[in-house]
Amino acid sequence: MLSVSILTIGDEILIGQIINTNASWIAQKCLEVGATVVEHRVVGDSQNEIIDGVDDLLKKSDVVLITGGLGPTSDDLTKPTLAKYFQDTLIFNEEVLEWIKEFYKKRGINEVSERNRNLANLPSKCKPLKNEFGTAPGMLFEHNGKILVSMPGVPKEMKFIMETHILPLLKSKIVSEKKEAHIFVTLQTCGIPESVLADKLSGVESVLNGLNLAFLPSYKGVRLRIEAKGLPIDLAEHQIEQVKSFIYSKVGDYVYGEGEVTLAETVGKMLEERGETVAVAESCTGGLLGGEFTKISGSSKYFLGGIIAYSNEIKSVHLGVSTETLSKYGAVSQETAIEMAYNVRKKFNSTYGISITGIAGPTGGTPKKPVGTVWIGLSTPNETFAKLHQFGGDREINRERSVASALTMLFFLLKGLEL
Amino acid sequence: MLSVSILTIGDEILIGQIINTNASWIAQKCLEVGATVVEHRVVGDSQNEIIDGVDDLLKKSDVVLITGGLGPTSDDLTKPTLAKYFQDTLIFNEEVLEWIKEFYKKRGINEVSERNRNLANLPSKCKPLKNEFGTAPGMLFEHNGKILVSMPGVPKEMKFIMETHILPLLKSKIVSEKKEAHIFVTLQTCGIPESVLADKLSGVESVLNGLNLAFLPSYKGVRLRIEAKGLPIDLAEHQIEQVKSFIYSKVGDYVYGEGEVTLAETVGKMLEERGETVAVAESCTGGLLGGEFTKISGSSKYFLGGIIAYSNEIKSVHLGVSTETLSKYGAVSQETAIEMAYNVRKKFNSTYGISITGIAGPTGGTPKKPVGTVWIGLSTPNETFAKLHQFGGDREINRERSVASALTMLFFLLKGLEL
Repeated sequence: MLSVSILTIGDEILIGQIINTNASWIAQKCLEVGATVVEHRVVGDSQNEIIDGVDDLLKKSDVVLITGGLGPTSDDLTKPTLAKYFQDTLIFNEEVLEWIKEFYKKRGINEVSERNRNLANLPSKCKPLKNEFGTAPGMLFEHNGKILVSMPGVPKEMKFIMETHILPLLKSKIVSEKKEAHIFVTLQTCGIPESVLADKLSGVESVLNGLNLAFLPSYKGVRLRIEAKGLPIDLAEHQIEQVKSFIYSKVGDYVYGEGEVTLAETVGKMLEERGETVAVAESCTGGLLGGEFTKISGSSKYFLGGIIAYSNEIKSVHLGVSTETLSKYGAVSQETAIEMAYNVRKKFNSTYGISITGIAGPTGGTPKKPVGTVWIGLSTPNETFAKLHQFGGDREINRERSVASALTMLFFLLKGLEL
Repeated sequence: MLSVSILTIGDEILIGQIINTNASWIAQKCLEVGATVVEHRVVGDSQNEIIDGVDDLLKKSDVVLITGGLGPTSDDLTKPTLAKYFQDTLIFNEEVLEWIKEFYKKRGINEVSERNRNLANLPSKCKPLKNEFGTAPGMLFEHNGKILVSMPGVPKEMKFIMETHILPLLKSKIVSEKKEAHIFVTLQTCGIPESVLADKLSGVESVLNGLNLAFLPSYKGVRLRIEAKGLPIDLAEHQIEQVKSFIYSKVGDYVYGEGEVTLAETVGKMLEERGETVAVAESCTGGLLGGEFTKISGSSKYFLGGIIAYSNEIKSVHLGVSTETLSKYGAVSQETAIEMAYNVRKKFNSTYGISITGIAGPTGGTPKKPVGTVWIGLSTPNETFAKLHQFGGDREINRERSVASALTMLFFLLKGLEL
């Protein structure tokens, strides 16, 4: 196997001001080409810590991918630190200067400042990697049969360098050296609790053949992750197919996708295939359900829009919820959810209308309607109904679970499953 | 200084399926009580990797905080691994069994399964830490003057154990042992580029006195982070105040908050103080601006709602954008943005109306209106206008930058700054 470790450099990540999304992106992409990820590590902007991390990770893995610490400001330490570690000196690279000039020229700037010229000073032993989205190039070192790559921390720049230079290199190494593969396949389910899923899948051991099946629950649903490690790639793929067939035969209805697909994406595709449309009426989620639908490019084919009815007045004036309903049952009620869903469908002339009204918290709860009480309504050309949820989490979780539950409800309806 | 390292255990994080938000939360909280974070590390569900990580981090730091690998399923390795590492044996803890029974009882379950009873089997040397939100207790080990804590990976459970048991312990250690503090203070700015900020703050060196000032740009704005390390806590706080005064005197207008405050929060507070309200009309952001406003508990005082006008028909029928405007100038135009902002303000009877219409990408761009072209409109009781942005990023970034720019526009208006 080709083993990869990921070293993230930067006080911002270390102190928690930025979440380390780079590491998870890199890990996913490395696995996709068949490499194994063995460790992530985050260290601060300190020469000793960087050297210590590099030294340790080069012992533990075939490839060390570093992000961060490459910009023009004085915090940026990676370059001199790597030069020191590899007992190298910085030399001025004319080709890299051309890249920097070209980068600025495209942005209408013809003068390169001294500080930015300095970015072309690179360790002599590294191969510079062109960065189309920034001025600091990546650096590739080969050292005692190991590979070390240093990339900027800006996600767009890092992703460009990974996709253009590094992932093809890793893939070719795996193929040419006939390395064993490490494959993960994930099936995404929704609307079925982990324990029920586990019951329905009892007996899966008989088809696992040494593969591993993990149940990964979250508020969006349970992910089923099949892992094959240490097998030749074709055998691994064959065995994974067998496990997948078993899962589909038992709980296929609840599987909304494989890999990184989102439920909104699947629901969107189903709507598009059926030539149907949806509109939303959101209270406590304030637009997040619309935001989730429109994350998908091309969603305008089935997502028409919606009304964010955060105040009661908007619910009645713009969404037509009767003031009687609001005063008799309250804004968070089955009746209000039903009127919201029905009315947004009628107003927007969509096939389906979805509504969300609830108490996200932390304030606003009562003994009868505690924080986390959320009604989700669904209106179709045939019927309109609403379901009660008691999430009981904190504000953000209640809002995100509301969005996930609304999408699950529409998914079940489109699949013809019992709601 | 009291140094902390964070060890995250779990294949899911290692392979990038889950982003490591626990580590950043833990880091922030440790800094708040005055500890220093020296490293984050992620390893897989493997006994050797866990032992290797624990051993290494116990050498590098005073405190090792571990999350993950504590549940009842067979993936969960942390407990036996720590027992092995500390040459300890598992013994059944009756008090912990009571906690587990209590947890289930609250949820109406009176029977504890064998699998869950097993959670009360703990290394004899650890102090169990009660977990009110789950069944697996935390474990505290003291070893050669170092502290090691193992917590579940579920964020809510980890946060409860940190806040109830660990943060008070760290704080008391720092105070009783008179450790030097490591303090970070962050000022958040918006609407001013890094280079302009740097120019306006030239001369800051004269007040830094050994403190560090970092410029941290993102698409939401530039954060200014002041760092004091290795000083007694009162001196550190005094020096930080001096740097803050300097920054406020030079660029105070652009500072919208300190610490973790969001721009939506600041803008919301300003609206609330003025007794003013806002409504939104969103096209390419599909509800994300409403989602950002309503992230704040209590936002119903100033955020009324909005219209998600994703299709042109909704823009004209429900938002009253004239069909002539749409056909003559297009949906992504100054004219459409102005009509959207004005009409949503009038329709919702709010003080301000904000509109966003743009080409988020990756498709839909033209030579005249490339991907990333976004018009943001703002309507006030006195005037309505729109500003053009050319973000040129990918879909998600264009949408998030649109939200940030819309909030910045309203912030500038409320502050009386030039737009």
